[in-house]
Amino acid sequence: MSRIAFIGLGIMGSPMAANLVKAGHTVTGYNLTQPAIDKLVADGGRAATSIAEAVAEAEVVITMVPADPQVEQVILGEGGVLENAKPGTLVIDMSSITPQTSIKVAEAAAAKGIRTLDAPVSGGEAGAIEAVLSIMVGGGAADFAEAKPLFDVLGTTVIHVGPAGAGQTVKAANQLIVAVNIQVVAEAVVFLENAGVDLQAALDVLAGGLAGSTVLNRKKANMVDRQFAPGFRIDLHHKDMGIVTAAARAVEAPLPVGSLVAQLVASARANGDGSLDHSALLRGVERLAGRKVN
Amino acid sequence: MSRIAFIGLGIMGSPMAANLVKAGHTVTGYNLTQPAIDKLVADGGRAATSIAEAVAEAEVVITMVPADPQVEQVILGEGGVLENAKPGTLVIDMSSITPQTSIKVAEAAAAKGIRTLDAPVSGGEAGAIEAVLSIMVGGGAADFAEAKPLFDVLGTTVIHVGPAGAGQTVKAANQLIVAVNIQVVAEAVVFLENAGVDLQAALDVLAGGLAGSTVLNRKKANMVDRQFAPGFRIDLHHKDMGIVTAAARAVEAPLPVGSLVAQLVASARANGDGSLDHSALLRGVERLAGRKVN
Amino acid sequence: MSRIAFIGLGIMGSPMAANLVKAGHTVTGYNLTQPAIDKLVADGGRAATSIAEAVAEAEVVITMVPADPQVEQVILGEGGVLENAKPGTLVIDMSSITPQTSIKVAEAAAAKGIRTLDAPVSGGEAGAIEAVLSIMVGGGAADFAEAKPLFDVLGTTVIHVGPAGAGQTVKAANQLIVAVNIQVVAEAVVFLENAGVDLQAALDVLAGGLAGSTVLNRKKANMVDRQFAPGFRIDLHHKDMGIVTAAARAVEAPLPVGSLVAQLVASARANGDGSLDHSALLRGVERLAGRKVN
Amino acid sequence: MSRIAFIGLGIMGSPMAANLVKAGHTVTGYNLTQPAIDKLVADGGRAATSIAEAVAEAEVVITMVPADPQVEQVILGEGGVLENAKPGTLVIDMSSITPQTSIKVAEAAAAKGIRTLDAPVSGGEAGAIEAVLSIMVGGGAADFAEAKPLFDVLGTTVIHVGPAGAGQTVKAANQLIVAVNIQVVAEAVVFLENAGVDLQAALDVLAGGLAGSTVLNRKKANMVDRQFAPGFRIDLHHKDMGIVTAAARAVEAPLPVGSLVAQLVASARANGDGSLDHSALLRGVERLAGRKVN
Repeated sequence: MSRIAFIGLGIMGSPMAANLVKAGHTVTGYNLTQPAIDKLVADGGRAATSIAEAVAEAEVVITMVPADPQVEQVILGEGGVLENAKPGTLVIDMSSITPQTSIKVAEAAAAKGIRTLDAPVSGGEAGAIEAVLSIMVGGGAADFAEAKPLFDVLGTTVIHVGPAGAGQTVKAANQLIVAVNIQVVAEAVVFLENAGVDLQAALDVLAGGLAGSTVLNRKKANMVDRQFAPGFRIDLHHKDMGIVTAAARAVEAPLPVGSLVAQLVASARANGDGSLDHSALLRGVERLAGRKVN
Repeated sequence: MSRIAFIGLGIMGSPMAANLVKAGHTVTGYNLTQPAIDKLVADGGRAATSIAEAVAEAEVVITMVPADPQVEQVILGEGGVLENAKPGTLVIDMSSITPQTSIKVAEAAAAKGIRTLDAPVSGGEAGAIEAVLSIMVGGGAADFAEAKPLFDVLGTTVIHVGPAGAGQTVKAANQLIVAVNIQVVAEAVVFLENAGVDLQAALDVLAGGLAGSTVLNRKKANMVDRQFAPGFRIDLHHKDMGIVTAAARAVEAPLPVGSLVAQLVASARANGDGSLDHSALLRGVERLAGRKVN
Repeated sequence: MSRIAFIGLGIMGSPMAANLVKAGHTVTGYNLTQPAIDKLVADGGRAATSIAEAVAEAEVVITMVPADPQVEQVILGEGGVLENAKPGTLVIDMSSITPQTSIKVAEAAAAKGIRTLDAPVSGGEAGAIEAVLSIMVGGGAADFAEAKPLFDVLGTTVIHVGPAGAGQTVKAANQLIVAVNIQVVAEAVVFLENAGVDLQAALDVLAGGLAGSTVLNRKKANMVDRQFAPGFRIDLHHKDMGIVTAAARAVEAPLPVGSLVAQLVASARANGDGSLDHSALLRGVERLAGRKVN
Repeated sequence: MSRIAFIGLGIMGSPMAANLVKAGHTVTGYNLTQPAIDKLVADGGRAATSIAEAVAEAEVVITMVPADPQVEQVILGEGGVLENAKPGTLVIDMSSITPQTSIKVAEAAAAKGIRTLDAPVSGGEAGAIEAVLSIMVGGGAADFAEAKPLFDVLGTTVIHVGPAGAGQTVKAANQLIVAVNIQVVAEAVVFLENAGVDLQAALDVLAGGLAGSTVLNRKKANMVDRQFAPGFRIDLHHKDMGIVTAAARAVEAPLPVGSLVAQLVASARANGDGSLDHSALLRGVERLAGRKVN
């Protein structure tokens, strides 16, 4: 059993920390707001009043925060993890950020004898609660092996995909493919409807052939019924498209289609659809088709 | 058992006609070249020396030809099906063409008391031989019901999706989604490789999550190994992208992403990749990334 | 002075025919509707009751009709120009159509000993009235030389750009560039406004540098004032984008940006902006930005 | 006459500083490398050994450095302009960077009683030498009025376009329009050539109509002759496309076409064309068309 510091007890972090407690680990949590810390204590964890206190005695530090600036602040910043963790500590950042920031964190940590993994997840709040996340891990093989039992507490698909940053790269690729797959299904839906086809029958046959996809299976009901309760919010996918376009640019990988879809995700948000499920990209195609969607 | 005229005994038509013979139907075939007719006779069918002769006594006429102009010629043209079939005949066009041409055929046929279905297929040569095609059918419900037993001889997924042209529309939507799903996986592959990620591990984890798709499952090995033996040729997908962009334009459905991918498919062909499997769209992304692909 | 048959006396054809009369030519006109013929007679021309009558004694036949199907019907169809014109006649089609149809017309005419030029124009109704059209001519050099004096009556920029179809190709390229130049200015306008920049000052400085264009000069006032009275209607530009994307596909020329803009033009039309000036592409960008434009 | 500190004496900064000296101002220069400082001294300026020394007695500080990080370092960083300039100093950043960084600089400066303008230029090395730059200025009206005489020494088009950041926004819009205008001309060129049109004649007629642009006028010879000596390098335009896509994202302005062209510019660079003139985007279209370009 490990002594774990858990920084960032939000929608994702809170159930993940609870699952680690349940598995028998000693989890000391820190969060910017107190109720989340109280929740962890109620779940059997311990409270810290600062990052410094949380990480002081930790063998493993897990961070789960919203975006690049928070990762930089929490890990690299004043009073942050690197200033306070002991040499040899394993810092696992499970936030979804740019691979470039993960690499920067890894290099800064290495200079202090601290080991890191980047381990973003997919599966959402439900996946966090039910401990069925997919976890894509970048970093050293030995560090991955050491962390594997912890990851297995949190998820069901846990894969080491390469060196520092690789976890983030795969997460970014995931979000890229998902957004494009949604967009093309949305284009197909409007095309089918405009042509007078029986949409439900059409999507069923499409799902059964080479056009089939997890997106089509899981999102076709949303699209047919125009029910866009999240699920995964467009606001978050917009953030992720920013990550993947920046990351691809950094490694000189062309995203002709991906960058266009990033614009369409941004447009959905600009049209007030940010809090809807990402399958609401359909509404953007409908607007282009001249339909009234509100 | 039905008396069937089968026009167009090519790579797809030949095994389909043979399967109908095997199921006990009387199949009279016509083709522009003799060897294909001889093959049908060897399979137990009958030979006709003209469309007129083939359709004269037929209850059902099936056409399976390359593209719109051949459908127009074979069905609407001089000496074609409509000139020679008896009123009441059911004409089933299983070619992949624009919905607009299918509608035109349906209207011309109706004027002569001839019934039609458009019933394009997916599944390729292997699907035709093994009788496991997906068949998307447009036309009247009663005509569909009448033809259903024949379709069941040829395929395993047989769905009535709407009025005349609807089968073609769904086939076009299928090809749209497939092309875009391939393209985005190709963009992801180059991104992952440029970032130094373990590609095989990454694609495995991607296939297991929301980014998963039949394209990813069936084509990831092609992409990892750069093995692009068809499968489904880019030349054919280029023809199909022409159909879907034209059909979408006709019904005022926007394809911002689809039309861009149509350009990339055309570019693949212009770069000499027309006879490769459509997963070779990867080579186009590699060219954009400055890699030498030949 | 020439004996000219003029087929198609619409918004463009009527003033062009009148200008030829004014220059001293004998112009016999035919149109589907009578008032346009009466107008030509009032302008000093002669009336014909059929294409056959119009072209019977003509040295030169000029056609100016809406699109490919009308050109095919008027020139190639039953009772059309090729059936009735004498061998040696010079047929000048000034409609804007696909280069492929112009080539087909040229080949059919050559088989009857009839010479052809494709000579689409730009400059709009005002250019036709004031005889300041730009005329892009495809066909034989000798035929161009023979027709040059007539073109000089109609326009101020008259250029021979290549063999049959070349005039249409250049016209298509013109419409391609214009649409894209408008679209990018529209993207810039929304960007500048969202960023709080003084739009008028910004467009003035942009117009003076490498970003300057005839589009920016002529359309910036429309955009600043949101005044979209045509001008050149989006409906017509939509037709032209259909021509250029089809023509480019036929010669395997990639239009990654052009095809995307064709989709945006189609979207403008689907949103009810078809009768506005093409500078109203700005409204499409505003919709993508979440602005209410109506 | 003003006491000016000039930080950044590169290809652009060096002739600009020299022109200010020539106009009678006292110019003290600082650069990371000594030869550029020696050059300024030879031109009649003064040398400083640090930013601190350069700005200590300055009324106006001009910075001209490559990109956002250098601006942040030189102005905001340790030992930088804000640490060393007197309250009331006017800091004019003439670098091309993101508007967001300009705004950040303006806010940091204001907190110290230092005034700022962002004043990026277009016109290139030749424009700097000949003092015919276009200068787009963001910031306060009074500060602009005060700086106007200095700008008039450096350029011929000097326009105040809005508050802090507005100069950068307009520069970004300029680069957006230029890149897209080049790209569409490149698409047109390949289309015209594939169709067998006389390219030179076609471009001449296009330049004379609504398709005309400064890009077409200045770059058509490059394209016809495939001579791509810069001019303005693709590497620099790639940097600028990064600025405009980031800036547009920040203000929620959609760039469907702009973002696609940004990908094509990046692709040109990935294909080794970074040091060519931006008109070499033609080579990217040729690659898509399957031509060998090397």
